[in-house]
Parts: sequence; C-alpha cells; structure tokens
Amino acid sequence: MSTAFAEKCRKVVCIGRNYFDHVLELNNAKPTAPFFFLKPPSSMLLPGKGPILAPTGVNCHYEVELALVFEKTMKDYEYKGKDEKAALSECVDYISGYTVAIDMTGRNVQDEIKKKGLPWTTAKGFDTFLPISHFIPKSAVPDPSDVTLFLTVNNQKPYNQHDSTNLMMFKIPELLSAISSVMTIEAGDIVLTGTPKGVGSVKPGDHIDAGLEVDGKVVEQSKISVDVAEKGGIYVFGK
Amino acid sequence: MSTAFAEKCRKVVCIGRNYFDHVLELNNAKPTAPFFFLKPPSSMLLPGKGPILAPTGVNCHYEVELALVFEKTMKDYEYKGKDEKAALSECVDYISGYTVAIDMTGRNVQDEIKKKGLPWTTAKGFDTFLPISHFIPKSAVPDPSDVTLFLTVNNQKPYNQHDSTNLMMFKIPELLSAISSVMTIEAGDIVLTGTPKGVGSVKPGDHIDAGLEVDGKVVEQSKISVDVAEKGGIYVFGK
Ligand SMILES: [Mg+2]
Ligand SMILES: [Mg+2]
Ligand SMILES: [Mg+2]
Repeated sequence: MSTAFAEKCRKVVCIGRNYFDHVLELNNAKPTAPFFFLKPPSSMLLPGKGPILAPTGVNCHYEVELALVFEKTMKDYEYKGKDEKAALSECVDYISGYTVAIDMTGRNVQDEIKKKGLPWTTAKGFDTFLPISHFIPKSAVPDPSDVTLFLTVNNQKPYNQHDSTNLMMFKIPELLSAISSVMTIEAGDIVLTGTPKGVGSVKPGDHIDAGLEVDGKVVEQSKISVDVAEKGGIYVFGK
Repeated sequence: MSTAFAEKCRKVVCIGRNYFDHVLELNNAKPTAPFFFLKPPSSMLLPGKGPILAPTGVNCHYEVELALVFEKTMKDYEYKGKDEKAALSECVDYISGYTVAIDMTGRNVQDEIKKKGLPWTTAKGFDTFLPISHFIPKSAVPDPSDVTLFLTVNNQKPYNQHDSTNLMMFKIPELLSAISSVMTIEAGDIVLTGTPKGVGSVKPGDHIDAGLEVDGKVVEQSKISVDVAEKGGIYVFGK
C-alpha cells in the first residue's frame, strides 16, 4: 500500500454541496452548478500519522468523500452532449486511482466566514484537516459512480455516514468540467467529490473509521482509522 | 535570474484587505484581524510566459503585491510581545527571498461569491491569474516593510498603483502568525501580503508593467511585463 501520491499533490480541489440530503441537513441553498474550494496540501494527514487536531473553540465536522488522484493534465474538459458512461470512462482515463478523504471542516468558523462573505480557507485548511487513505488502484473500483462511502465515530452503528456515490447531484464528468474550465488540473492533483448526509461533530478523544465499500465489501486500501486530539497552539476561534 | 522557486511551491497563501485605502476603494469592511485565501499553483504565470488570459464575461482586476518565498517550515509563529523590528527579522529568517506577484481577481465573480457566502476560489484561481516576477534575493530588499510596489496599465503615468509596503495595516509578523497558527507554512510556499490602493480592470489588448522600487530605483528581478488576451475555452461568467 502506498501514499506516494500525496507528495506529488500541489492542489486539492473540493466540491461543495453535491449530495442533496447533505445540503438539506445544513440548511444550505441547493447549488445550480458545481462549486469548489481548495484545501492546502499541508492539511493532508497520511494513514497512521494521526491524530486529527481540533483547534481550540472549533466545532470540527467530518465529511467523508471519494477523491480522484490525477495522472494526466485536464483543461477545459467538455462533458456536454456526451453519453454519461462514455464521459465517465473518459474522465477515469485522466486519473491514476482514488483515495478516501475526510474533508474536516470547522463548522462554526465556516458559518462566520459565510456570513461575512470571506474565503473558506481557514475553516477548511487547518493542519490535519484532510485525513486520506492509502492509494486505491482503479482495479479496486469498477464503477466510481456507484461505490459506498462510510464513516463511523466511536464505532457507532448504523454508521454516521453510509451512502452510495450514485447520489451525487453533479456527476464526475460535470464536476471535472466545472473545475478544469477555471483551473488546469495537473498530474498529482486530488479532487474531492463532495460528502453524503450524516456529517457531524467530533471532539478530542473520539475515533473515526471510514472507507469505501464495493459490492458490500470494504476495500482494504480505503480504510482510515484516526483519533481526534486537541491541537493546542495559538489559534483560538473567536479571538 | 531564476524562477525555480515557482516549481517548488505547493501553496500560495494570499492576505486580503491589508491596505486601508484599498479597503475603502472597494467599499469593503475593514478587517479586525488578517484573513487569507489560497490561489492554486496552477494559476502562476512565469515571467515571459504571458499573456494573462481573461475568461469570458469576467471583470479582471489587477492587484500588485509583495510576496514572500519560504525556505523554512513555519508553524504557530508568535509575534506578540516582541519588538516590531526583531519580529520582522525573525520572519525574514524563514524566507529565501521575494517575488512580486499580481493577484488577478475576477471582481464580478468575487462580488457574486461574497453575496452567496461561497468560496473565493473561482474568482482567484483561473489559469494565469498569478503573474510573478523572477526570484528577488533578500540582498535586494533591505527592508520589506518599506519598499514601493508599482503597477501601470498601458504605461499610464502616474502609475495605477504606487505605494509603500509601510502602509500595511497588519505587518508581516502578524500576517505570518495568523497563517501559521492555522496551517503550517512549508518550504517553497509563497505568501502574498495584500495590495495597495489603485486596483482596476484590464481587458484583452491591455499591457501591465509592475515591480518593486527600493530607494526610488526599480529592482531588476522584480519586473513584470505582461499582456492581457482572451482566454476562450468553455468558462463563461454568469452561465
Ligand atoms: Mg466536503
Ligand atoms: Mg478558498
Ligand atoms: Mg490580493
């Protein structure tokens, strides 16, 4: 199992609000087109390198997501007028494989930022706010448009998050068209495709398990198992 | 002259609203603490590699800025209680040098994003939206807290932007403390420190010259000379 892909990454692009029930649970407006933000590569947390560090005063939410690891340059990708399966297969040609990612989010930080019309960067960009799994080869994911993401806090059953990627409102080709019409996706870049419903808070002392199921079986390389601890340091939310 | 630093960069962190007269000219709220956003490395435009590409329907604004190029890891940097000069000198120890950067901004895209509380990423992240100069060694910039930035469109005199970095509301140590308390600044990362007043639009056919003056003399490595052209492609603002 490998995490070498993480070192080659210069840009992590994340899609927001791409699962309808997740839009509802946060009382957000349903987007009419895909939108996205960046997480810094410095926020990545490799498997076994935990814990997730919760900054003082920050309400830390988990969001499990399927992520694409690029190996070819994509620019101005056009999906319109194409057959859905053919377009997906074209997109898969640009990637080397997948990773499962947890898009950790300071929800109260984000709420304040949104009200003020400020950038999301702080809410999304704290160190350790992007736990990822090992590299998942394409062969382990026969159809990225129908695999099941799961996440559980402290081994809760039923899982906190447990949904198929077939619930995405905007499908992978449309997501990649939206991103690559603005910014070139380069080899090594990682694209997170949004989170299904069930997001919630974790606090120091909690433990998160997450991953991907294909045909009801957990993909070995996709497993994330990570603790949450206090960050300490000088950041205090609201100060 | 060298641009090798650009290839090592994995994160470009940009400070917003750090010059009072610039806050006023855009009718923005004056920040009570530094805030920042990310530009993707894919937006960098190296010297001589122009033009800047204006996406269809986008009001493209220039913002000339002093940028710091890091060579050491900075995390949780504390400036409080320190003498201003001593703190600045500590910060300069973390960097290898400087570059002049133009933080190109889709102003109408940003206005819409701000209203909706969405991420600034698209407004700031288009390909070619980060023209940079060659690497500027520390020796050419005796005091980064008092050098003069300039930018002129189509050789306009007086310059469109022409102000000293001594007008920053939050000084370099406070900026770096704010960033590094959230996200580790890694070797190769670039930090833009905000733009002085005088920002405005450019359109295809325009030409921008920008750079840095020390004691009234333009620093050779700091010069940016770049045309603006149409981007084309599939992005259309408002569609
Ligand atoms: Mg997310
Ligand atoms: Mg952002
Ligand atoms: Mg700026």
